[in-house]
Amino acid sequence: MTINNTTTIGVIGGTGKLGAALARRWAKAGLRVAIGSRDAGKARDAAIALAAETGTEVDSGLNADVAARADVIVVSVPFASQVATLEEIRAAAVGKLVVDTTVPLMPPKVMRVQLPPEGCAALRAQQTLGETVRVVSAFHNVAAHKLATDEDIACDVLVFGDDKADRAQVVALADAVGLRGLHGGALANSAAAEAMTSVLIFLNKTYRVDGAGVCITGELDINADA
Amino acid sequence: MTINNTTTIGVIGGTGKLGAALARRWAKAGLRVAIGSRDAGKARDAAIALAAETGTEVDSGLNADVAARADVIVVSVPFASQVATLEEIRAAAVGKLVVDTTVPLMPPKVMRVQLPPEGCAALRAQQTLGETVRVVSAFHNVAAHKLATDEDIACDVLVFGDDKADRAQVVALADAVGLRGLHGGALANSAAAEAMTSVLIFLNKTYRVDGAGVCITGELDINADA
Repeated sequence: MTINNTTTIGVIGGTGKLGAALARRWAKAGLRVAIGSRDAGKARDAAIALAAETGTEVDSGLNADVAARADVIVVSVPFASQVATLEEIRAAAVGKLVVDTTVPLMPPKVMRVQLPPEGCAALRAQQTLGETVRVVSAFHNVAAHKLATDEDIACDVLVFGDDKADRAQVVALADAVGLRGLHGGALANSAAAEAMTSVLIFLNKTYRVDGAGVCITGELDINADA
Repeated sequence: MTINNTTTIGVIGGTGKLGAALARRWAKAGLRVAIGSRDAGKARDAAIALAAETGTEVDSGLNADVAARADVIVVSVPFASQVATLEEIRAAAVGKLVVDTTVPLMPPKVMRVQLPPEGCAALRAQQTLGETVRVVSAFHNVAAHKLATDEDIACDVLVFGDDKADRAQVVALADAVGLRGLHGGALANSAAAEAMTSVLIFLNKTYRVDGAGVCITGELDINADA
């Protein structure tokens, strides 16, 4: 499967800050998106607004319904809601690619790295969804309020997953929102980007930054990833 | 304490790639370094060569002896040797600042994030050394073979520790080697930079990079950290 304008990207938690920003950038890039929420009315309002802005059709519905209609599922919910949300969409996700964006932030100590017992939120997603679902994780480090604008953002998207072809789809999804997607290795490696988010929040506070990001430096041969 | 040219930086594992490169850059910056090793002869040879190159005096000795004579101790050994090395220098380190640079790489799977049960190597260092030793971690992401040259390196040094004044000393040590040191928060946050090293090794292989690095993006107010 290659993601193109016939593919539906179902954004679970699509009315949240990160989910809404991703959906908007994908819609503007000509991709088909569907906005899921726990509240079908909120999802519908968000879809109508996005459709009006972009001039495209935007589907919406309850999370489980959007997951059922989607070709690719993107999950963007708070850490505290991750497992319950994944359980809701599990049946609909069988055989599909699920992009988990969860960062294990545990308020009030969001500036402190607190990885879950599974090692990282991505591994927790895989365990919750089971082996029939293809889990990839990404979009941990980009500031949602910047992604919600049209500005250029200096932040790479590290993409983690145990299957290279699945990762490549998500690298393309990162490129579609205007960021540089990079293969970051195994799903277990997601711990690096997830943990970095707490460090970025610390940096934002310490150095008064409006959304610090992470860029990989060095002469990357982007075509060498095939 | 402020690190200056009367302070002795004892580099434990100072004949290794990272340790030797750090010692050389500090010596060239006018700081006093002492090179420690398990092999006093190797340490002495390295110190003589460094002294000849930089025109400065360079002390050397067994790890425990160098730790005893040092004002600040920098530990640069492989993960497999971390605990044994720290136990060797523990008595000499009481009351001192110890900069742990350990990355939990477990050959042969060095491209896979494998954080230790303590959460990260830095917390393992603190547990091994005990509460009378002030542990800060840093220098996880810089490529040693680049640091061994005089070239400019595009890589920030995230500095982790529970005491802000201690972190500030290590931020200054990073600046002294020509990199940008940044406060990264609590010692537990070291997990982010430690895990990132496995991702960087993966990126080096995948994108044929000669030493990928990590830079924090955004408008950082560097003077706001005080």
